[in-house]
Amino acid sequence: MLAAMSATTPHPAQAINDDIARASPALLALLSELGREAVYPPDIPHQAAQARGKRFNATIGQITDGHGRVLALPSLERQVSGLEGDHNAALLYSPIEGRESLRRRWRGRHRPSSPAASPSSLPLVVAGLTHGLALVADLFCDRGRAVVVPVPFWGNYRQIFALRRGGRIVPADIYRAGRFDPAALRAPLDALPEGEPALVLLNLPSNPVGYSPTASESDHLVEALAGAAARRPLLVVCDDAYAGLVYEDDIPRESLFWRLGSIDERLLAVKIDGCTKELVFFGGRVAFLTFPFEPDLPVTRALESKTKCLLRASVGSPVAVSQEIALATLEHAGVEAEIEQVRQVLARRYRALREALERADPRLLRPLPFNSGCFALLELPEGLDAEAVRLRLLAEFDTGVVASPPRHLRIAYCSVAEEAIPELVSRIEAGIAAESS
Amino acid sequence: MLAAMSATTPHPAQAINDDIARASPALLALLSELGREAVYPPDIPHQAAQARGKRFNATIGQITDGHGRVLALPSLERQVSGLEGDHNAALLYSPIEGRESLRRRWRGRHRPSSPAASPSSLPLVVAGLTHGLALVADLFCDRGRAVVVPVPFWGNYRQIFALRRGGRIVPADIYRAGRFDPAALRAPLDALPEGEPALVLLNLPSNPVGYSPTASESDHLVEALAGAAARRPLLVVCDDAYAGLVYEDDIPRESLFWRLGSIDERLLAVKIDGCTKELVFFGGRVAFLTFPFEPDLPVTRALESKTKCLLRASVGSPVAVSQEIALATLEHAGVEAEIEQVRQVLARRYRALREALERADPRLLRPLPFNSGCFALLELPEGLDAEAVRLRLLAEFDTGVVASPPRHLRIAYCSVAEEAIPELVSRIEAGIAAESS
Repeated sequence: MLAAMSATTPHPAQAINDDIARASPALLALLSELGREAVYPPDIPHQAAQARGKRFNATIGQITDGHGRVLALPSLERQVSGLEGDHNAALLYSPIEGRESLRRRWRGRHRPSSPAASPSSLPLVVAGLTHGLALVADLFCDRGRAVVVPVPFWGNYRQIFALRRGGRIVPADIYRAGRFDPAALRAPLDALPEGEPALVLLNLPSNPVGYSPTASESDHLVEALAGAAARRPLLVVCDDAYAGLVYEDDIPRESLFWRLGSIDERLLAVKIDGCTKELVFFGGRVAFLTFPFEPDLPVTRALESKTKCLLRASVGSPVAVSQEIALATLEHAGVEAEIEQVRQVLARRYRALREALERADPRLLRPLPFNSGCFALLELPEGLDAEAVRLRLLAEFDTGVVASPPRHLRIAYCSVAEEAIPELVSRIEAGIAAESS
Repeated sequence: MLAAMSATTPHPAQAINDDIARASPALLALLSELGREAVYPPDIPHQAAQARGKRFNATIGQITDGHGRVLALPSLERQVSGLEGDHNAALLYSPIEGRESLRRRWRGRHRPSSPAASPSSLPLVVAGLTHGLALVADLFCDRGRAVVVPVPFWGNYRQIFALRRGGRIVPADIYRAGRFDPAALRAPLDALPEGEPALVLLNLPSNPVGYSPTASESDHLVEALAGAAARRPLLVVCDDAYAGLVYEDDIPRESLFWRLGSIDERLLAVKIDGCTKELVFFGGRVAFLTFPFEPDLPVTRALESKTKCLLRASVGSPVAVSQEIALATLEHAGVEAEIEQVRQVLARRYRALREALERADPRLLRPLPFNSGCFALLELPEGLDAEAVRLRLLAEFDTGVVASPPRHLRIAYCSVAEEAIPELVSRIEAGIAAESS
C-alpha cells in the first residue's frame, strides 16, 4: 500500500518511518508490511488529549458527571472499594499506552543500575504477555519470515507468529545433547540467505523447559546472536514472562535484553514482561512491551506510534482496573519481600522435584536441564508416546501432566504443593513403567 | 495453506469447517483464509481441562498453593478485598472463553423473551468491544473484502478492518438527506459482483451520530439487508456498544441482531456488546461476542473453536478480575435500576442538548438526527473546516469537541453536565460564527 500512494501525497507513516530509518536501517528492514503502514492517527484520543483541562470538554466518550468522575453504578463501585489506588481511574479508560505512573515504576523496577545496561523505552502496557507477543508479530512478522525458536517451545508461539501472521517457525535444537547449547541457535540462522531479516524468540526462564543459562552460557548466547546479526537484521524477542523465578545462586537473574542493546547495530531486542507471574496476577492481564531505545527519542516515539495504532486496532486501551491494582501493589513498601517469599516457595518445590527426579529410574524418564521458572520437562524413552502416557496417568493414576508430543511430559510444579511432589513423581514413574511394559 | 496440505492428512480444521458447511454454506463462504485455518488446538488448556479434579494435577502454569488457590501477594490481595465475587477466580486465569456464569447471565440479560428472537450462542468474553470487532475481522475479513459502513463512522473501524486485515471500507451514505435512509445501504452492496461475500457494520445507537432507527426505519433496514443477502453471503456485524442508551419512547431499544436470524439463510449476524457502556465499566475491558446459533450445536462449537484459537493468538484469556467485578455487579438485585438511573441522567442531558441546538442558528450548525447513545454530530456550513473550528474552540473558547473532517463536530454529551450544556452550545455556535466571518 505504501507504494500505491501517489508520489505527491506522502503516506501518513512516512515521517515516522524516516525517523526509524535514521536511527536504525536494520529496524526499518525488520518491520512487517503492517508495521510499516501503522501510525497512530491524530483522531479522537489525540483530540481528547488536547482538550484536557478545558472548561467545556465534550470530547470524551465516557459516561461521567461532567467533571471527569465516572457515573459509577453503586453496585459496581463497591467491588473496587478495597483498592488503594485511584477508583475513578480504575473505572474509566486507561490511556492507550497505559498509565504513565505504572510505566515509570515498571521501568524503574527492572532497569539494572549498571550504566552498561542497554537503552530502554518507557514500557507500553499491553493486555498480557500474549498480547505483547502478538503486537511484536504484527510489527515485525510478515508471511514467510523466519522465526527461530529453541525447541521445545510454548505451542502458542505457533498460533501467534505462524497462524496469524504467516511467519515460518524454524526450530533450533538447543537442548540437543541434554544440555543448553547456545551455538545451536546459529545453524538455522546461518542457513538463511544473507541479509534476510529474521526473528529469534528467547523465553528464559523457559516454558516448557524451565531453564535459564549460566553466566558462561549467556556469554555464548550473546556471541551467537552477535554472529548471526553480522549477516542480517535480527530481532531478538525476549519473552521474560518468568522473570526473577530463578532458584540457583549461580544463575544470572537479569534478562538478556539488558546485554543486547549495543552488540551490533543490526541486532534489535524487545522485552516483553508482565504482572502475570511477577506479581502472581494471572487474572489481571497487565504486561509490558519495551523497546531498545531511550524514552522520547524520535525512533522511540515512532515505534510507540505504530504500537499504539496496532493496540487500537486489536484491543483498544488496556484494562484500567488491573493497572490500578498493580500500581497500588507496587507502591507497598513490602512488596519485593512478598515476591521473594513466593520465589522461595517455588524454590523449595524445585528442590523437592530435583531430589525426587534424581531418585527416579533414568531408563524411564530424564529431565531436560531445569533451574528456574514454573516447569520441568521430562523426556520419555524412545518408542513411548507422551500422549498415551498422559492419558494413562489420568485414567489410572489420578494424575494430570501436559504431554508435549512426541516424547515429553511437562510438570508444572508451580501449582503442586511441596509435600505432594515425591508422590507425584512416583506416580509419573509408575505410569511410564506401565506404558513401557 | 489448506490447499497445500497433503491429500491424505486432513487439515486439523477440516472437521469443524465441515460442521460449518453443513449448517450454513454462506457462513463457510464468509470465513477469511485465517478463519478457515483456525481451530483451537488440543494442547495445554485442553489438557488442563481434562486434568481438573485429579488428585495430582501438574498441568496448570499458575502459581498456586497446590490446592487450586493462588499464592497471592498480600499487598495485591488487599486491593480486591471489596470484591463480592470469587477472589481466587479474580486473580487466576479465566477460561479462554470467559467465566461460564457471566456468559450465561449476559445471555439471559439480553435475550428477548419473544420466541421469534433469533437464535444466539452463549457469548464469548472478549477484551472490550474493539477486541470483539478485531476477532470478527480476523474470522471474516480478507484482503479486498467489502466492508460496508454507514458514514460518518467510528474511525477505528478503518484500523480494525482495513489496516490490520486489508478489508475495503465501502461507505454507505445513510444520513444523506438529513434523515436516516436504510435504502442507502443497498446501493454499495448491489454494486458488488453477484455472489461475492460482504460485511456490513451496524452500530446502533451509533458513534458518532447518536442515532437509533424508528420501528418503521428498522423494518426498512431489515428489508434492505434481506434484499442484499439475496445476492450474496452477508455478514451483519451488530456493534451494540451503546445498547440500551435510548432516550425517546418510540425508538426500539432491542438490538437488530434479534431480528436478523431467520430472514435469509445467506444472512448471518454477529452481536458485539459489553460492560464498557452498559455497566459504565470503561476500565474493565469486558465485552461479548455472540453468534447466531443456539449453544452446543456443532456449528456453534466450530465457531467457538475458531474464535478461541484466535483469542489465544491475540490476547490469551480475558481479564478475570473485571469479569468477577461485572458478575458480582450483575448479581445485585438493584443493578438494573441503577443502570436505568444512568440512562435517565443521559436522557436529561440529551433533552438539554436538543433544546439548546433548536435555539442555535441553523445557518451555523445542523445536527444530524440523534436520539440515543452518547453523542450528537453537528454539520458545519459548506466552506468551513471542522479541524479549524475545533482548534479555534480550543484556543479562544476554552472548549473541546472532536472534529470529524471535513465538516462535522462531535459532541460527547455523555461527559458534560446537564447544566453546562446550554453554555457549551453557545460557545460552539460562537466559535463557528467566528470561523465563518
